[in-house]
Amino acid sequence: MSARSPSGDPWLLTPGPLTTSPEVKEAARHDYGSRDRHFIEVNRQVRERLVAIAGGQGTHVCVPLQGSGTFVVEAMLGTFVPRDGKVLILANGAYGQRMARICGVAGRRFELVETPEDTPVDPQALDRMLADDAQITHVAVVHCETTSGVVNPVEAIARVCAEHSRGLLVDTMSAFGALPLDARSTPFEAAVAASGKCLESTPGLGFCIARRESLKRARGNAHALSLDLHDQHAAMEKNGQWRFTPPVQTILSLHRALEEFEAEGGVAARGGRYRSNLRILVDGMRGFGFQTLLPDAVQAPIIVTFHMPADPRFQFEDFYERMRRRGYVIYPGKLTSAPSFRIGCIGRLGPAEMRGALAAVEGILEEMGVASGAPGAALTSAGSRS
Amino acid sequence: MSARSPSGDPWLLTPGPLTTSPEVKEAARHDYGSRDRHFIEVNRQVRERLVAIAGGQGTHVCVPLQGSGTFVVEAMLGTFVPRDGKVLILANGAYGQRMARICGVAGRRFELVETPEDTPVDPQALDRMLADDAQITHVAVVHCETTSGVVNPVEAIARVCAEHSRGLLVDTMSAFGALPLDARSTPFEAAVAASGKCLESTPGLGFCIARRESLKRARGNAHALSLDLHDQHAAMEKNGQWRFTPPVQTILSLHRALEEFEAEGGVAARGGRYRSNLRILVDGMRGFGFQTLLPDAVQAPIIVTFHMPADPRFQFEDFYERMRRRGYVIYPGKLTSAPSFRIGCIGRLGPAEMRGALAAVEGILEEMGVASGAPGAALTSAGSRS
Repeated sequence: MSARSPSGDPWLLTPGPLTTSPEVKEAARHDYGSRDRHFIEVNRQVRERLVAIAGGQGTHVCVPLQGSGTFVVEAMLGTFVPRDGKVLILANGAYGQRMARICGVAGRRFELVETPEDTPVDPQALDRMLADDAQITHVAVVHCETTSGVVNPVEAIARVCAEHSRGLLVDTMSAFGALPLDARSTPFEAAVAASGKCLESTPGLGFCIARRESLKRARGNAHALSLDLHDQHAAMEKNGQWRFTPPVQTILSLHRALEEFEAEGGVAARGGRYRSNLRILVDGMRGFGFQTLLPDAVQAPIIVTFHMPADPRFQFEDFYERMRRRGYVIYPGKLTSAPSFRIGCIGRLGPAEMRGALAAVEGILEEMGVASGAPGAALTSAGSRS
Repeated sequence: MSARSPSGDPWLLTPGPLTTSPEVKEAARHDYGSRDRHFIEVNRQVRERLVAIAGGQGTHVCVPLQGSGTFVVEAMLGTFVPRDGKVLILANGAYGQRMARICGVAGRRFELVETPEDTPVDPQALDRMLADDAQITHVAVVHCETTSGVVNPVEAIARVCAEHSRGLLVDTMSAFGALPLDARSTPFEAAVAASGKCLESTPGLGFCIARRESLKRARGNAHALSLDLHDQHAAMEKNGQWRFTPPVQTILSLHRALEEFEAEGGVAARGGRYRSNLRILVDGMRGFGFQTLLPDAVQAPIIVTFHMPADPRFQFEDFYERMRRRGYVIYPGKLTSAPSFRIGCIGRLGPAEMRGALAAVEGILEEMGVASGAPGAALTSAGSRS
């Protein structure tokens, strides 16, 4: 017996691409010219709704960008940090490190401050660093670092940046739509996310929620024409059209996904469903002896990292394949330094799918002859219930 | 009475996004994880087929890139032209000029040589320029310049580049799949195109057909991490997976579109259908008095530029709207310096759709009281039948 989503595919318990609704995929079954009036209106609505989700009405604009999330992260860094600026990157995982790599290639001065992957970045340390280095023009941070699944305190970081009058750039890729990020209470210069994460649409489009005044000043900063958010925005403001060919079908899907997002009840409801998914998943897995890398207090309801079980009969490749055959795709990639694997809880998933996945885990452990998912004894403290 | 494509939308007589088959859109109705085995296999097949279309088996590789066509044009220039290199850009329209703009932003030395928009670029002039300037490492040219619809002599340009041992970079965006470009007879270092043009899929993905040896040497050249084709390729070679989240659904559609492309009979058959579309369109429009910007000898079977009629009762906005209401979307954008408008003949279109569009034009001219589409008398020579 194998579970299947309405499209006949396994359920995706991954951090995106993820399972989307049938209607989100159905919305893409049209061909529109990129200069078509209907398409331009769809595009306008999408941009307006994204600004509203971020609480940026009147102060911020939405600049969409073709490509994956990394493209718009790079576009944000290149567009907002002037060529003679300097960006302080607070990192506790692969996505923070990637921002440093982007700055290296783009020729932006940066300082990379790393904290352990199971620990949120530290606003007090940031305060000292900004006081010490007047050359820092911008601070960049990842909202939810999917390396481990840890959530970083963007509100406190924003307050520190505001006190020191430095621009805050947020990669809120995996969190946007599920964790609150409100420009009115959390001042930021720019925040970027993408279509294929918690907004539950298909991948292929990123977007930047940019403070209008900061974007105006960013003319000529960018290191690449395709990644120039100032130019992208200026062209779109003229006639509502894209500079370069837009991913039409991806935008049609996102438009539908945003309608579903609003119908569900916005960030509060979406985040609530994910928190419920997380609770079911973590409680169930702990019941089988598995332990989480993160303490509950810093665990975002996006993706959970579990320590690899100590039992040698637990072979991850085999586990992954058996889960897939039962209709649940978990995340095969590992980014943490600790031996671990990850299961996501975002996308068109609810209690039934999370319980179905847990039943699959239980059956597979039995098939494999694994009595407990417990990691080695030395690890028990990190995953304790708090 | 209004014509409609199978998806219920107007037919797109545009240079892409264009009308795709129902099956191409249907293929995208799945959610796969980006590390899923099935998706990796789809991706492998797509890359292999694209190399084969360009005759690059054994010598070239396909590096796909998220984003629009311009993204992969910029990625090609940034990846292949070293930071101390110099590129000679042969331009006869907006897309050639855009390559110059890209180089300006990316900090690549370039020389822009412009010829009129109704004239192919000149291989003999190129020969002299390369003899005169040993600093030029690369030559860049647009295969079919959709500004006017003119086709450039890439084969002759490739021979000149080979004689002078300079690398050739081809933007074959609007031509790939319809006009032959064979790496065995037309040596190039890199050629770029996209999913949403003559391959008749949806937009959102570009790709570069790159000479393997040239790509190997391109490490560290790129001006942007997201646009680094060397890095993109190196990561994909490791495990078949993408560096950054791929546009999964766009790739599923392209996979299906490539199957349809092969079933139709490849470049010869696809190009043949488009030439037939072109013939019907141009003959019909000339029958109404319209004149083409280009002489037939340099007109690519992609998009046709027509001179604006002299009759003041012909208002283009009105004409466009009436065409749209009858089910045919033509291209509202104008890029040529001459007053003109454009109609495309690519996409899932055949004789019936071209004749349908002509019937719509005839009816609308009658409604508007326009007796002839003829431009002012001074223009008659350029559009004469040759």
